[in-house]
Amino acid sequence: MMLERFLGSGAAAGALDDTAFMQAMLDFEGALAGAQAAVGAIPRAAGEAIAHACDAARFDATTIAAEGARAGSLAMPLVKALTAEVARTDAQAAMFVHWGATSQDVLDTALVLVSRRVLALVDDDVGALVETLIDLARVQQGVPVLGRTLMQPAQVVSLDFKLAGWIAPLVRGRARLREAGARALQLQLGGAVGTGAALGEHADAIAFAMAQALQLRLPDAAWHTQRDEMATLAGALGVLVGSLGKIAQDIALMAQGEVGELVEGASGGSSTMPHKRNPVGAMVALAAAHRAPQRVAAILGAMPQAHERGLGDWQAELAEFCGLLASAAGAAAAVRRAAEGLQVDAARMRRNIDALQGLVFAEALSMRLASTIGKAAAHHRVEAWSRRAVEQGRHLRDVASSAIVDDEALRDRIPASDVVALFDAEAAAQHASRLARLRLKDLARQSALQEDSAPWAAWLPGDDGDDIEEDA
Amino acid sequence: MMLERFLGSGAAAGALDDTAFMQAMLDFEGALAGAQAAVGAIPRAAGEAIAHACDAARFDATTIAAEGARAGSLAMPLVKALTAEVARTDAQAAMFVHWGATSQDVLDTALVLVSRRVLALVDDDVGALVETLIDLARVQQGVPVLGRTLMQPAQVVSLDFKLAGWIAPLVRGRARLREAGARALQLQLGGAVGTGAALGEHADAIAFAMAQALQLRLPDAAWHTQRDEMATLAGALGVLVGSLGKIAQDIALMAQGEVGELVEGASGGSSTMPHKRNPVGAMVALAAAHRAPQRVAAILGAMPQAHERGLGDWQAELAEFCGLLASAAGAAAAVRRAAEGLQVDAARMRRNIDALQGLVFAEALSMRLASTIGKAAAHHRVEAWSRRAVEQGRHLRDVASSAIVDDEALRDRIPASDVVALFDAEAAAQHASRLARLRLKDLARQSALQEDSAPWAAWLPGDDGDDIEEDA
Amino acid sequence: MMLERFLGSGAAAGALDDTAFMQAMLDFEGALAGAQAAVGAIPRAAGEAIAHACDAARFDATTIAAEGARAGSLAMPLVKALTAEVARTDAQAAMFVHWGATSQDVLDTALVLVSRRVLALVDDDVGALVETLIDLARVQQGVPVLGRTLMQPAQVVSLDFKLAGWIAPLVRGRARLREAGARALQLQLGGAVGTGAALGEHADAIAFAMAQALQLRLPDAAWHTQRDEMATLAGALGVLVGSLGKIAQDIALMAQGEVGELVEGASGGSSTMPHKRNPVGAMVALAAAHRAPQRVAAILGAMPQAHERGLGDWQAELAEFCGLLASAAGAAAAVRRAAEGLQVDAARMRRNIDALQGLVFAEALSMRLASTIGKAAAHHRVEAWSRRAVEQGRHLRDVASSAIVDDEALRDRIPASDVVALFDAEAAAQHASRLARLRLKDLARQSALQEDSAPWAAWLPGDDGDDIEEDA
Amino acid sequence: MMLERFLGSGAAAGALDDTAFMQAMLDFEGALAGAQAAVGAIPRAAGEAIAHACDAARFDATTIAAEGARAGSLAMPLVKALTAEVARTDAQAAMFVHWGATSQDVLDTALVLVSRRVLALVDDDVGALVETLIDLARVQQGVPVLGRTLMQPAQVVSLDFKLAGWIAPLVRGRARLREAGARALQLQLGGAVGTGAALGEHADAIAFAMAQALQLRLPDAAWHTQRDEMATLAGALGVLVGSLGKIAQDIALMAQGEVGELVEGASGGSSTMPHKRNPVGAMVALAAAHRAPQRVAAILGAMPQAHERGLGDWQAELAEFCGLLASAAGAAAAVRRAAEGLQVDAARMRRNIDALQGLVFAEALSMRLASTIGKAAAHHRVEAWSRRAVEQGRHLRDVASSAIVDDEALRDRIPASDVVALFDAEAAAQHASRLARLRLKDLARQSALQEDSAPWAAWLPGDDGDDIEEDA
Repeated sequence: MMLERFLGSGAAAGALDDTAFMQAMLDFEGALAGAQAAVGAIPRAAGEAIAHACDAARFDATTIAAEGARAGSLAMPLVKALTAEVARTDAQAAMFVHWGATSQDVLDTALVLVSRRVLALVDDDVGALVETLIDLARVQQGVPVLGRTLMQPAQVVSLDFKLAGWIAPLVRGRARLREAGARALQLQLGGAVGTGAALGEHADAIAFAMAQALQLRLPDAAWHTQRDEMATLAGALGVLVGSLGKIAQDIALMAQGEVGELVEGASGGSSTMPHKRNPVGAMVALAAAHRAPQRVAAILGAMPQAHERGLGDWQAELAEFCGLLASAAGAAAAVRRAAEGLQVDAARMRRNIDALQGLVFAEALSMRLASTIGKAAAHHRVEAWSRRAVEQGRHLRDVASSAIVDDEALRDRIPASDVVALFDAEAAAQHASRLARLRLKDLARQSALQEDSAPWAAWLPGDDGDDIEEDA
Repeated sequence: MMLERFLGSGAAAGALDDTAFMQAMLDFEGALAGAQAAVGAIPRAAGEAIAHACDAARFDATTIAAEGARAGSLAMPLVKALTAEVARTDAQAAMFVHWGATSQDVLDTALVLVSRRVLALVDDDVGALVETLIDLARVQQGVPVLGRTLMQPAQVVSLDFKLAGWIAPLVRGRARLREAGARALQLQLGGAVGTGAALGEHADAIAFAMAQALQLRLPDAAWHTQRDEMATLAGALGVLVGSLGKIAQDIALMAQGEVGELVEGASGGSSTMPHKRNPVGAMVALAAAHRAPQRVAAILGAMPQAHERGLGDWQAELAEFCGLLASAAGAAAAVRRAAEGLQVDAARMRRNIDALQGLVFAEALSMRLASTIGKAAAHHRVEAWSRRAVEQGRHLRDVASSAIVDDEALRDRIPASDVVALFDAEAAAQHASRLARLRLKDLARQSALQEDSAPWAAWLPGDDGDDIEEDA
Repeated sequence: MMLERFLGSGAAAGALDDTAFMQAMLDFEGALAGAQAAVGAIPRAAGEAIAHACDAARFDATTIAAEGARAGSLAMPLVKALTAEVARTDAQAAMFVHWGATSQDVLDTALVLVSRRVLALVDDDVGALVETLIDLARVQQGVPVLGRTLMQPAQVVSLDFKLAGWIAPLVRGRARLREAGARALQLQLGGAVGTGAALGEHADAIAFAMAQALQLRLPDAAWHTQRDEMATLAGALGVLVGSLGKIAQDIALMAQGEVGELVEGASGGSSTMPHKRNPVGAMVALAAAHRAPQRVAAILGAMPQAHERGLGDWQAELAEFCGLLASAAGAAAAVRRAAEGLQVDAARMRRNIDALQGLVFAEALSMRLASTIGKAAAHHRVEAWSRRAVEQGRHLRDVASSAIVDDEALRDRIPASDVVALFDAEAAAQHASRLARLRLKDLARQSALQEDSAPWAAWLPGDDGDDIEEDA
Repeated sequence: MMLERFLGSGAAAGALDDTAFMQAMLDFEGALAGAQAAVGAIPRAAGEAIAHACDAARFDATTIAAEGARAGSLAMPLVKALTAEVARTDAQAAMFVHWGATSQDVLDTALVLVSRRVLALVDDDVGALVETLIDLARVQQGVPVLGRTLMQPAQVVSLDFKLAGWIAPLVRGRARLREAGARALQLQLGGAVGTGAALGEHADAIAFAMAQALQLRLPDAAWHTQRDEMATLAGALGVLVGSLGKIAQDIALMAQGEVGELVEGASGGSSTMPHKRNPVGAMVALAAAHRAPQRVAAILGAMPQAHERGLGDWQAELAEFCGLLASAAGAAAAVRRAAEGLQVDAARMRRNIDALQGLVFAEALSMRLASTIGKAAAHHRVEAWSRRAVEQGRHLRDVASSAIVDDEALRDRIPASDVVALFDAEAAAQHASRLARLRLKDLARQSALQEDSAPWAAWLPGDDGDDIEEDA
């Protein structure tokens, strides 16, 4: 679907396309045969012949999908085609294709394998995005910008403070994705009802060898209808998309013509409207932020899968999971692109503050007065002065200064310099920036650690498969 | 994605694939140029050259999608490619490609055009399904089957009664889809901000001619950010999928080994478990019933689109709408397949009733007694008798008959034949069947009317475009 | 829950609270007994005694709910309590409480009754909102305002054009709600498995009389597990909330400090930030726009209800439906409030246009040039002039005028007055306003018709129940 | 709402009701004043006076909610009422109510506080449920039961194997809830835009003291619009509800009249249908499993909150979070109830296996043959024999035994005893049970560890609580 590709990322699309998914299914079959040959459950030659045939280029995904729809299982037609392919050169080996496994073993493991590839892309994009934003925060340190609440200007913060608020959830989100991935990316191998009965006495050793070959976690048990680890991974993806969406939302709002504080580096133009700098990275991330929550809901809603294999719910989960991966990858890549070369208009940020005639400092003024004349009286005065500032188009600082000078009770207790200081956007920004810098230092450290490690600790069952044999 | 095709229908997949969607976009451009030429807004030769170039075979969807992702618009790269294509033969004509239209005009109209094709497929499948089920109800008229509530056997109904409950929502759902389609399948043509300003003085006439050419409804105004008609159509699709899911749910439950009342005609087998008759039609429909509600939620959630064109939400809506169409088409085709050749085991239905030792008739017994000895006393007795029936493994009819004969107060007031009649599964089924037959007659009539009419009345703007000119 | 009340409407909360819901359940029981007495199925005195006891003030909702949770049915403890209440004065009558009905009959009918009350509130609020916006459009006729696409300024439209875009979906949404309500607000009366068997020979007459008494539509059959009409009504509510959310979104964006074009009449203040005019009506509607789609999804997802009564899904649907009603009522009331007294700053709208230095007219300029020198050349020139305008901080009109005068090829073919005319915000707004006025006239007419009719035509089964008796 | 209480748990309802929520808001205000007094930011007497007034019994939640709806903030009217309450005894102290905090500080912290109470209830119920199921698995060790896939009987497993599949996600789910809770249950204290500027120089010390007083985690920064930790907690709740729903689904299916393998301890009866044992615990959990995913989606969908405080999305999140808590608590309590006293009919489980005439052992038979005559030939034979078994109503074991004896090629290579052994349900169950016992041992250990620790490590800002006392 063009529209899906439009909202996705090219790399993720490649990792999720028909060929890639079919290859992942074949990787399972190849690893199964290899493991069975290694432990002596099937002839060594059969293992080799099967592994050799497990190449997606030999099969037609469209035919497999069509037959799968008729059969009610994508795995069955592929196993049949693989068996025929193996039989072309080794009839004996063909007998051992898919030996002891069930359709769901193939499909769940294939999903895990393609998920790993997409998660690595997402991890990489988020890492790069974090670095980009940390750099930006360094460059823009202490730049005053309006803090806005309920879509209204509120008080002055600094741009690095705002950026720290974008970055922290990304660092946490990346950690969360790795944790959830480390648990969810596990082998599925349970046979018809999860007991692995048809794998025979070597079941444990086969699973161990397969997990090692595919570099997947070896689960405590088959998880055919225990989907909580996959659902948790889905949730982590959903949360990350939400955090990316928040950044996109802020960019889109700050890029509005009337605000003009940010412009996306790679913003889309319009042939007929030359002033337009469409925030197309934000667009893709916002689209994902609309879609991903529903993917997560579908996956959660499909959890109550009956007995030992679900009917309809499991199948829905697989498809929704792929859609979620595509959305998350699209969003991560898009926000990364948007951030790289993000143009900051610090002067405009300042003008937007100044345009508010000092009203954003009213709280500070009120609290300063309160310490002198009490909260109620202070509030009352500031309200009146603010009204006057709005009506007369004057700056609240000037209104307040005049009023204080004119007031015997205040004149001597509140020096003029104090009033002026309250309205200092730079000072307000510095306060915010101090908080931000402490935090960014810590975030930079965490991000560096993340960059230095693989997305998730590869499952390493040990140096020597023999240990297992002895135990078994 | 293989998993999507696995859960979809081949025909719908074809109507929604890259080529089809791109062709729909080109159909818009061709119709626009044609209409503009017809009203004299652009040279006749330009109209012809553009229309001639609007053939998806000339363009590469993958490239367009990739460039679209960069540009933040699928329409812009296609317009560019189309312009180049026209320019190859007619540089003058190339100037008029996409003249006065905006990206969203192309994409929304393309969505409408592909939707129409998929809706026609769904309409057809639902129609055939209704006919199949009505036939089945005729054949199975009056067959007793357990009514079940809260997943427990409750009382006896008839199979045609149960089928009428499946059919009615399908007939209503088909009508609903046609109504919603008739309103939502409308031309989009508003230019940059929906005013059609760039279309010039001929704007109305161009729209009229385009709507006629594409056989689409002419809207009251551009609906760039008024998505209520599309959302309503999405809702109608979601409701239909829910009604199909209800049938699938019942089939899956009745096909359980321990129930054994129904087997899907085209049920999937298992190479290693020969007794399995997997309800694969039900599976596909249930998967859709998990997914479609989330597509509808995404479309509803994307409705608050800002100003004159949304950022992210609109784009999400387009993609989700296509996913919803695919799910609905998959579900309709699957339940149709499941119903065609659905095998009914009336004997098993009867055995399932008989296995309950008459307890499903306890309410009837209680009400018969109540009219004689009052509700409370009746309830008390029947409860005791039911307990006895369960404990002693006897039929409640026999327990009750003995007890009544032994009871002086009841013996003369409740004849033995009355008691026996209360436990008559056939009679209970006949009562239900009488209701069902009346209803089915009406449903058959409605379905026949639906079969006789086109899915939705084609928009016919009138015989003569000149009328419009005069009005304008 | 305070948070629910905070986001709801007081009137709807009253229609959905414990007492109201319990009274609706009692209304069912009273109407049932009344109808049964009327047709002679139970003694007239029993009918009267039961109807008399059906007063929510006599029962404790908290106890009923607690016992219902234990029993797995809200209806059972209420029926028990009602029976005890009737028995206090008429032991004989107590025998006939709930006679022949099932729990779901009570609960579904109660849901329908409370829904009707809330829908009437929503209908009323939407009607008033439409009238308010139509009036506003009249007052603000032709006021130029920026049209914005992808969150960027695009071209000039008029405020009444924008308002027409808000109003049309409300008028359609109100009509949709009435249609869906007219079909969904129907009696539920099917007994244990939907056959009405326990109602005896008078079943049809009882249903007829009940429907008449409760002024509800008489359904073709029990709809215990055919939820499509309710789901369609839910969809209509969801779509309406989406259309209200779109208005709220626009208001919130236009009320931003940097845009400053609109202020909500009843905007919330901040004690410490006097410049804040929080768009609290928009806030409530946007909250609903986040929540309602999920309620709709839950209701659609719960549609595949097993057999003759669902387990868990039906119960979820009831609760979600009430939540949806509350959200919709909250949104409608909030946007109505926001619109009443909405302050328009036409001067600011104009300043926002002017601040863009004429770039929003670039498309018009380009098309004017194209008709003289061809599209490609025109586009090329306008792009260069726009760049110059941005770089030099000049108005595009001035840049273009100078350039045309300086250019021999253009000087004579494009009069200066033509160029100036292209940059006329008023003229652009007038074009949009002309479209809007035609449309608003039609919308006003439709709204007036809606105001003149009841929310949905009351179901009127006829003057005389005797007709039915003869048919039966 | 009665329907909400019906689907919730009494204890959770109490923790989430108006009074509880208002008290949580007041706990924030009290702790704030206490902390400010402790660090000398406000007078000691003011701190005491405010803390003393922070008692929900003094305020009317209905009024506060109504005023909050008007003001667009629940916190503002409560702060106003609290100020008035304090002023009744200490006008000076009233000045310091809510000093330096913002509405969102109050509401987010209140949400966190009520969440903690509900999470503790859920944790407790899940713990008890795990223990109950582990005990059941011990008692029912090795009992053969059908494994079922795609809603069809597949092969034989053991009941403890099935129970281990229920238990493991609960143990993981409880751990996940604790982890997510430990991170998400943190203080919110950022003031107007998250910089804590109005808290003055003591901001850090105040936050520290408040976190200690409320025993909440001290966050790295205000998280006004960084909702990822709350969304992650929501996801963990959603996943747990899904795992509970899976158990409920299995119970409901196994409790069907035609299956009859399980009956809920506290199953709901029906006054008129004495045979019904409605699985009402499963019902409540399944209802939650329909609802919770949509709550999670709403929370995820609300994540892109603009700037420093969201408009509509944040408010929606708060309400949805409470709904999610209520659903999760309802589900956990219901499945716990269902499991306590769950009745197992081992004989029926066995009869359900036997009724399948040995067909569930066809895979085992096929694999045994394959090792002798090859997979293809084996499959071919077993298929033929299975068909014969079905047609003749014989046991596959007998059909196979006769066929093998009659076949020269097989007779000598496959001893009769081997064939009989393949059809041994006990042996198949023992294989599954061996796996289960290993796993259950580990799960029991993990559960014991969980029982021994508090739901989440209390936040401890220092080594010694006394230090704090001295400071205070």
